[in-house]
Amino acid sequence: MTTETAPSPTSSDSPPPHGEPRVVDVLVVGGGSASETAGPRAAAAGLSVAVVEGSLVGGECPFWACVPSKAMLLAAHGHRRSGSDDHDAAWAWALRRRTDATAGRDDSGKADGLRAAGVELVRGWASVERDDAGGGLARVRRGGGSPDDPGELVDVLRWRTLVLATGSAPAAPPVDGLDDVATWTSDEALSSDHRPASLLVLGGGAVGCELAQVYASFGVRTTLVETAPRLLASENPSVGDAVAQALTGTGVDVRTGVTASRARADGDGVVLELDDGSEVTGERVLLASGRRPRLECVQTLGFDTTGAGALAVDDRYRVLADGRPLDDVYAVGDVNGRAPYTHGANYQARVVADALVGRPREGDETGMPRAVYVDPPVLATGLSADGAREAGHDVVVATQASSDTGRAHVERYDGPGTVELVVDAASGVLLGASVVGPEADSWGGELVLAVRGRLDVELLAEVVHPFPAWGELLLPAAEDARDQVRARRGDEQPGGGAEQPAHTA
Amino acid sequence: MTTETAPSPTSSDSPPPHGEPRVVDVLVVGGGSASETAGPRAAAAGLSVAVVEGSLVGGECPFWACVPSKAMLLAAHGHRRSGSDDHDAAWAWALRRRTDATAGRDDSGKADGLRAAGVELVRGWASVERDDAGGGLARVRRGGGSPDDPGELVDVLRWRTLVLATGSAPAAPPVDGLDDVATWTSDEALSSDHRPASLLVLGGGAVGCELAQVYASFGVRTTLVETAPRLLASENPSVGDAVAQALTGTGVDVRTGVTASRARADGDGVVLELDDGSEVTGERVLLASGRRPRLECVQTLGFDTTGAGALAVDDRYRVLADGRPLDDVYAVGDVNGRAPYTHGANYQARVVADALVGRPREGDETGMPRAVYVDPPVLATGLSADGAREAGHDVVVATQASSDTGRAHVERYDGPGTVELVVDAASGVLLGASVVGPEADSWGGELVLAVRGRLDVELLAEVVHPFPAWGELLLPAAEDARDQVRARRGDEQPGGGAEQPAHTA
Repeated sequence: MTTETAPSPTSSDSPPPHGEPRVVDVLVVGGGSASETAGPRAAAAGLSVAVVEGSLVGGECPFWACVPSKAMLLAAHGHRRSGSDDHDAAWAWALRRRTDATAGRDDSGKADGLRAAGVELVRGWASVERDDAGGGLARVRRGGGSPDDPGELVDVLRWRTLVLATGSAPAAPPVDGLDDVATWTSDEALSSDHRPASLLVLGGGAVGCELAQVYASFGVRTTLVETAPRLLASENPSVGDAVAQALTGTGVDVRTGVTASRARADGDGVVLELDDGSEVTGERVLLASGRRPRLECVQTLGFDTTGAGALAVDDRYRVLADGRPLDDVYAVGDVNGRAPYTHGANYQARVVADALVGRPREGDETGMPRAVYVDPPVLATGLSADGAREAGHDVVVATQASSDTGRAHVERYDGPGTVELVVDAASGVLLGASVVGPEADSWGGELVLAVRGRLDVELLAEVVHPFPAWGELLLPAAEDARDQVRARRGDEQPGGGAEQPAHTA
Repeated sequence: MTTETAPSPTSSDSPPPHGEPRVVDVLVVGGGSASETAGPRAAAAGLSVAVVEGSLVGGECPFWACVPSKAMLLAAHGHRRSGSDDHDAAWAWALRRRTDATAGRDDSGKADGLRAAGVELVRGWASVERDDAGGGLARVRRGGGSPDDPGELVDVLRWRTLVLATGSAPAAPPVDGLDDVATWTSDEALSSDHRPASLLVLGGGAVGCELAQVYASFGVRTTLVETAPRLLASENPSVGDAVAQALTGTGVDVRTGVTASRARADGDGVVLELDDGSEVTGERVLLASGRRPRLECVQTLGFDTTGAGALAVDDRYRVLADGRPLDDVYAVGDVNGRAPYTHGANYQARVVADALVGRPREGDETGMPRAVYVDPPVLATGLSADGAREAGHDVVVATQASSDTGRAHVERYDGPGTVELVVDAASGVLLGASVVGPEADSWGGELVLAVRGRLDVELLAEVVHPFPAWGELLLPAAEDARDQVRARRGDEQPGGGAEQPAHTA
């Protein structure tokens, strides 16, 4: 078990401000969604659980990231479909939607939810110590609000098991001059009411693509700059191509394969110099090129980190120190860098909660979905074709680049619709998949299950989708992949050519 | 193989009108979607294929059923969400959408599609003969347009393998007086431009529910009468309850558990007398209580039929005669009554096409989806809870009756959202599932795969859905079902109670 060797709470080297520190079975540092998942589950099993959070309970997602982004995206999609060019009114409506969705950044409902589940909430920033034998202290400070200004020490807790769920913060790319021009992080963009006349989006990942489409939809002249040759560069090429088509259709000037080398102010705006010699201009730069894990609370503890600056963990999400997992320290969510999504944090938190209540197991992120909520949305899971080849698989790839199906006909939809299946040629197992199209974040779930369950493409090609549902787009690709695998095995050519039909002379 | 014993084409007992009959490897009677699936696949493998169709190529679905219904439903949903009460304008727009979706009931594109795939299209109504040794003739008549008025003999073909795909026709329920009042079949409702002031819908299955919601959305006073205690009575109870909530919210007067005993004209309208003593009135009755398989073309052949009047087939969709499958006659789609959906016909046609090209196999309809495109839509697959118990399974049932998830929060959705999972208690295998909610026809596809693949609920509870996608609604039910199965097995109480956490004293 995780904390059988935890010492009794006597070894504190600095006295707590309010007498002997309280002891909790589980201390979660960071009140984001992982804490909302793991905390109540551990408490329900009879453990004492405290969550320390210096900002808003719920974390980035409901207040500064996913939720306001999705609210703005939905408003943007609605505005585009309305055909109206009254961007001012639509923007004002979108801001109201965003305020509703983020509850005006009031986290009291979420705080109440934790408490109702039997989880103690401690407001403040924790700095953590760990005893050599396991367990340790957490000092909680308030007022400063950041590690650099530690504020007043308000609480000290002794923990038996520590769950680090401190998340991540926006990171600026290394572009000369960015400090001297007007920039937004994604958090700032998603909390500001200002609609710039023009915007330079740095980064063509999920955040950059989503926010570029949001602003362009409301009439903002939007330029997106991405160093990789394609948007969403780690996904199958069909994904980036489809999203580029969607963004271009929304009016975004998509610049891929170029890198911003320098930023400079120009009047009230910004000029970005690109490494192809061209320049792009805008009122402001939106930094959407990455985030960095938040490690401040454990910076003195010498835990192992990854090359990307995340906490290194094993498959049970135990933090590594000198290459060995600690039985009393877990890290879940963005801070371990493995699956930096709200649903990734929640999944890892479920695995850790199982361990906390006596059912330790490894997480399996084989099918972890990656969604991008542009219009139409993207869902990807498992390995890309290139990733599968790099991992040593002999793969067959089946692609379909058409939205032509019964549903598209009924809805008169003629936008992007792509399916790409990556299948292990030897076993027929689906290794990865990506889909783009209306409701793809819904019907792509079938592929998440298939990748996670290591299912055979023979089965996938047998699955029936209701007419006329968008999922019917999957059949041609599944049959193609199945036929390719069969052909590789030599038991039949695609289309049945190897085995002559009995009818023909 | 299917037709190795087919005789040479010499045994015709009545001379064809244009010389010796042409011989085709495969004759498909009925030009609906099954023919569009099986015909091109057989032709691609080198077989000669002819399709006989007396009405529109494409069949019911694109012109009289699914497609116009879905077009009207989409228009109705849009109209409701607009909040407009200008029903006249919205109706006119809906009719335009319907006309677009049905191509004005012009099937030339579909006919061209068959021909481009190498399939011969013969316009007319077939009557089929079969030789004792296998194979047979088909006489094609035109002009009459129905079996009662056979019209002119225009062609005779000799077939080696016959695929019956003749579909179904609306059937009226046995209610006294229905012949003397104004009625619509669903086909008529979906081709008429008339919007009645009020409508009585007889039947609470998929067609009745869909059309009731369509008409009510456009301001038609709509009453739905269903004999069973619930709408969609063969599904899990949560489905009918959710759809009743949705229809009632659209203004439909939903009467379940009552049977129409008599219809009578009253002025310009209709009175339906119900067996609870009450009466309901409307301008017209929409007959939505069932369809009957179309067997006219083979009525003299003595094939076996089911109690419901469909052609009896084995699991390879070979037609039975005296209880034994014929190697040269298949029946797919509505005419065999097994999976009376367009996607059911297409699936069966794929299985038969495999047999035609030398890869005979059994169909597996374990996970066949059943969709209802009301708003929010329904997807069901596999066994209902009652059906599973009747089949002898010891089941655990996990239900969730809440749409509370991240997506609902972002979209401010507070309508129905239900998940019901039916799991074999002994094996943990998912036997069936039903979901109702936004995009349920998309995210429910995961459950179709799970039922078809006989997957374990342990796996389903591990599947991660992207935040905030509607599929997140599945997790609580999957975890509940998993915990119930574990508890039955005695290896753990739900919530981890059987095994004490290591932390607690």
